Amino acid sequence: MATLIAPSDHSPQEDAEALRDAVKGWGTDEKAVIAILCHRDAYQRQLIREAYQDLYEEDLIKRLESELSGDFESAMYRWILEPAERYALLANVAIRNASKDYHVIVEISCVLDPEELLVVKRAYQNRYKHSLEEDVAAHTSGHLRQLLVGLVSTFRYGGDEINARLAKNEADILHEAIKDKKHNHEEVIRVLSTRSKTQLVATFNRYRDEHGISITKKLLDEESDDFLKAVHVAIRCINDHKKYYEKVLRNAIKRVGTDEDGLTRVFVTRAEKDLKDIEELYYKRNSVHLEDAVAKEISGDYKRMLLTLLGKH
Amino acid sequence: MATLIAPSDHSPQEDAEALRDAVKGWGTDEKAVIAILCHRDAYQRQLIREAYQDLYEEDLIKRLESELSGDFESAMYRWILEPAERYALLANVAIRNASKDYHVIVEISCVLDPEELLVVKRAYQNRYKHSLEEDVAAHTSGHLRQLLVGLVSTFRYGGDEINARLAKNEADILHEAIKDKKHNHEEVIRVLSTRSKTQLVATFNRYRDEHGISITKKLLDEESDDFLKAVHVAIRCINDHKKYYEKVLRNAIKRVGTDEDGLTRVFVTRAEKDLKDIEELYYKRNSVHLEDAVAKEISGDYKRMLLTLLGKH
Repeated sequence: MATLIAPSDHSPQEDAEALRDAVKGWGTDEKAVIAILCHRDAYQRQLIREAYQDLYEEDLIKRLESELSGDFESAMYRWILEPAERYALLANVAIRNASKDYHVIVEISCVLDPEELLVVKRAYQNRYKHSLEEDVAAHTSGHLRQLLVGLVSTFRYGGDEINARLAKNEADILHEAIKDKKHNHEEVIRVLSTRSKTQLVATFNRYRDEHGISITKKLLDEESDDFLKAVHVAIRCINDHKKYYEKVLRNAIKRVGTDEDGLTRVFVTRAEKDLKDIEELYYKRNSVHLEDAVAKEISGDYKRMLLTLLGKH
Repeated sequence: MATLIAPSDHSPQEDAEALRDAVKGWGTDEKAVIAILCHRDAYQRQLIREAYQDLYEEDLIKRLESELSGDFESAMYRWILEPAERYALLANVAIRNASKDYHVIVEISCVLDPEELLVVKRAYQNRYKHSLEEDVAAHTSGHLRQLLVGLVSTFRYGGDEINARLAKNEADILHEAIKDKKHNHEEVIRVLSTRSKTQLVATFNRYRDEHGISITKKLLDEESDDFLKAVHVAIRCINDHKKYYEKVLRNAIKRVGTDEDGLTRVFVTRAEKDLKDIEELYYKRNSVHLEDAVAKEISGDYKRMLLTLLGKH
C-alpha cells in the first residue's frame, strides 16, 4: 500500500499559481511547496508541471532547483519527475559512480517488472541519447559488468508459468556455483539475468528446501566481493523487494551520518507504491516506527518532505 | 525495394474460398495456393487467415501443413506467418540447433532495428512462454553465449547521433582485441552488443580509415572459431545487411545440395522488404541472374514459390 495522501481532485492551474507564489521574490516558502507537491500523485504532478509551463513559460523543475538546496532539493527533484524519468535519472547517477552504487542498477533492473523496465529504458534513451545498456557496460568491468549488463538488458518473460524441473536443476547449478568458491559466474549470471522472476522465485524456494538455508544467507557466508554483493541484491530484489527496501532504510538510518541518497530513493520511489508495507516491515524488524527513526536522523524541510510522503503531515 | 507483387485490393473472403477449393478433397492445387498467398502482403495474408478461420472454423496454417510437404511446406509455413511470428519461429529453430545455426540468431538481432526486435521478442514470448534471451542462454555456452545473449538482449539506442571520439576509441579497442590473437572477447562483446547501429557503422568506418582494411576482412585473416564467425556475421549485418544476404544466397546456391533453409529464409524475410536490391547485388557479384541460379538448383512447387516471391510469375 502507498503512503502518499493525494486529493482525488485538484486544480493543476491553482496548484501552479500557489507554487509560483511560493517561489517568487526573495526567499521560498518551502512548506507550501511540500504541502502541494508531496500531496499529489505522479499524474497530478505532471499536470502541474504543464500548467506551470503554460502560465509562466518556465520549467517548474528548473525553478525549484534554483530555489531549493541540499538533500531537500535533491529529494524534491527526484520526487517531481515522472516515475520512468526518475528511474532513468537514478540509474544514470548510479552508473557514473558504479563502483559504489551498482546496487541501485541491480535494484532498478530486478524490482521493476519487464514492461516497466522497458519504459525506463525508453526514458533513459530520451534523456541521455544512449541506451541504458551501453552506459552500464562502459562504466563497469569484469564479472560485475556481465551481471549488470545482463540484468538491465534482458526483456524477461513476464508470465506466471513455473517449470519445477528447471527450478530444481537451476537451484543445483546455483548451489554448485556458490559453494565451490571459484564461483561459476557464467551460470549464475545466465540464470539470474534471463529467467522470469516467477521462475527464479521457484528456484530460490527449491534451493531453500534442498539445502535448509536461503541462498541469500548462503551468499553472506562467503567472502563477498562486489560481484557476490550484486548477486545478493538481485536475489533479494527478485524474492521480496519490500524486505529489501526495509533493509536499505535500516542501513541508511543506522549509518553514522545517515545515507540520504538511500533514504530519498526509497521514499520517492515507493511512496506511491508500497511504502506502507515497507514501514510495517520496518517496525516489525526494528521495534521503532520508521517515522520516529527518520525524524531523529534528519531535519528541516527535508524531514518535513519525507514525513509528508510517509503520510504523516 | 520489395519483389513481392501484391494487388492493392483483394477480397480476403474470396481468397479464403479459393484456398479452400485448392486444399479440399483429394490432392492439393499447389499452384493455386502459390498464386494466392505469394501475391499477398503480410497484412493481406493475416486477413485471409482470419477469413478462413471464420468461414471454415479451421486454422489455415495447420491445414496447409497437412496438405503440403518438404521444402515447399516449410517455405509456405514461414511465409504465411506474420513477420514477428516468423522471426520468432526462425529464432527458435536456430536456438535448438545453435551450434550450427547461431548465425541466424545473430542475423535477427543485428538486421532488425531495436523496435522491430522488441516486437519479435514479444512474439517469441507469446509463442514459446519463454524469453528469447533465456532460450539463447540455455542452449549456448562460453564466449559465443555471451555474444549472442548480448546481441539479442540489448534494447539499443535507435538515434542517429555519432560520437566521433568514441568511434575512434572503440575502433582502436576492436583492433587491439582482434590483432593480439588472444582476443579480448569482453570488449568486442561490449561494443558490438551495446552501441547503437549508427555509432557502430561509424566505428567500422573509422577502423577502415585507420587500418586500410575493413574489420570483416581482418577477421577472416584469423583462424576463425565460432565466436569470431559470429562476430563477423554481426558486423556484416550491422554494416550492410543486403550485401550480407547476397552472400547467404550465394553460399546457399553454390553449396553441393543447396542450403534450402538459407534460401527460404532470405526469400521469405526479404521479399516484402529489399529482395530487389539483394537480387541486383547478386547479379553484380555473380554475373548470373538470381532467378536463373535458383531455377537451376531447385524444382517443383518450391521453385515456383520462390520465383513468385521474386516477382517472376
